[in-house]
Amino acid sequence: MTISIAHLGPPGTYAEQAAVFYVNWLTEKTGIEAILCPYPSIAQSLQAVAARHTQLAVVPVENSIEGSVTMTMDTLWQLDNLQIQLALVMPIAHAFISCANSLDGIKTVYSHPQALAQCQGWLEQFLPTVQLIPTNSTTEALQRLEQELTTAAIASSRAAQLYKLPILASNINDYPENCTRFWVVSQKEAQTFDHTPSIHATHTSLAFSVPANLPGALVKLLQVFAQLEINLSRIESRPTKRSLGEYLFFIDMEADASEARVQSALAELKIHTEVLKILGAYNVLSINAV
Amino acid sequence: MTISIAHLGPPGTYAEQAAVFYVNWLTEKTGIEAILCPYPSIAQSLQAVAARHTQLAVVPVENSIEGSVTMTMDTLWQLDNLQIQLALVMPIAHAFISCANSLDGIKTVYSHPQALAQCQGWLEQFLPTVQLIPTNSTTEALQRLEQELTTAAIASSRAAQLYKLPILASNINDYPENCTRFWVVSQKEAQTFDHTPSIHATHTSLAFSVPANLPGALVKLLQVFAQLEINLSRIESRPTKRSLGEYLFFIDMEADASEARVQSALAELKIHTEVLKILGAYNVLSINAV
Repeated sequence: MTISIAHLGPPGTYAEQAAVFYVNWLTEKTGIEAILCPYPSIAQSLQAVAARHTQLAVVPVENSIEGSVTMTMDTLWQLDNLQIQLALVMPIAHAFISCANSLDGIKTVYSHPQALAQCQGWLEQFLPTVQLIPTNSTTEALQRLEQELTTAAIASSRAAQLYKLPILASNINDYPENCTRFWVVSQKEAQTFDHTPSIHATHTSLAFSVPANLPGALVKLLQVFAQLEINLSRIESRPTKRSLGEYLFFIDMEADASEARVQSALAELKIHTEVLKILGAYNVLSINAV
Repeated sequence: MTISIAHLGPPGTYAEQAAVFYVNWLTEKTGIEAILCPYPSIAQSLQAVAARHTQLAVVPVENSIEGSVTMTMDTLWQLDNLQIQLALVMPIAHAFISCANSLDGIKTVYSHPQALAQCQGWLEQFLPTVQLIPTNSTTEALQRLEQELTTAAIASSRAAQLYKLPILASNINDYPENCTRFWVVSQKEAQTFDHTPSIHATHTSLAFSVPANLPGALVKLLQVFAQLEINLSRIESRPTKRSLGEYLFFIDMEADASEARVQSALAELKIHTEVLKILGAYNVLSINAV
């Protein structure tokens, strides 16, 4: 059996690195093989699954330094037939890549805005006057590198190897404990490809909107979780895009959707929310440094 | 009296437009005049106030479509001696700016990532194959416009007028109710320049971190507000940058910091939080369409 997996491309992005790890893990465990399908945006990776062009997508959710990947949250809210199968946590180590022999003379640095933000201290220390130019992905930054010696890019050392480009400095992130969490997403009715039917999932993710002009509604909803002793590991708000001050909420619970206390919470939430989506119940897999 | 106000530059950005509105309002009300000081980033605008290079900064906090401006939240958390004086809510209308005579033949569109995201539906409808290139500000996008007829930029119509560039289409945002909220920020001990000592501020903003590995702590803290019947108009989480799953929280209360119930809430919060910052008590000024 061969399945297809969408991810933010071109090859060499951190999303592709996470997808490669997942494929190796899946093949070793189940014999299922997979082909990777790069898409130009995170939204298009998720739309590919919704439209059944691929079976899975691997998308970034959250970075420990820069926070939520809002494109992922907004697209998951818009699309109806998707569910989270698994979470992957991957350490991120950025490399400074250039054809120059030294940092002297570097005038322009290209990278994805999240990567530029995660290295801003290093850039201010070593290249205080450099021009920073955002790109759609870390790999696109490498493609902008010209042979001339005044430009550089920030991407993974794996990407530098893929494109045969020299690394001038490694591990340049300002915080060594830099991790990104990814979700493996499938269609709603899909089997779980790892063949471990979730007897006990460690996490369940929800998204909901509350009726307009009801400040304080969130507090009432959070009390539901507190009373049922359900721990929340994350809460994120996103605008409804209707008017300023109206929000959607994304919540990760440390509990399985099938537990009785979670079922009680969901019944209670249904009464007080406008739209309630269960995004999935899943386990978390840690990717060792690569 | 003349004061100086930092904002994201160059002139023509939405932050500058909000600052110009604030200056006109302030001058009319108090006679105080102001000079505007453009800075290359939001972080540098706030750092200018902290370092006493300017008296005020006007910074974007949140857009109704694209959500929080994380750079503003993270910098306010890092700097210690700042306070919010006033909130400004400004409608945002994007224009499509190019030297071309029509949309045919446009191959590249430059703009700030927030503006590109706010017009993605329009772009997909009229220019589905165009290349989108992010820039550090909407004004920088205009500076990238060449005389050649294959490039365009998204910025305000005011910016197009400032730089004497033609507008090909107006109001191209996907959602007509597009607003951005700005904060006017001063040093902590500064007088309120509008000379209305906040007898009753409508909003108070807080930021706090909770001790590590304490999921559910947020629920306990939110119960404090619920029990004291303090409405929250916004709650945002940001990573602590220490490790994945550890968050700071930013909360906007619909109450004045001087009210007894708010004082009770703050006393309670001090016990359960690691660091608690009161970012300011302030009123909200709506900017009419400009």
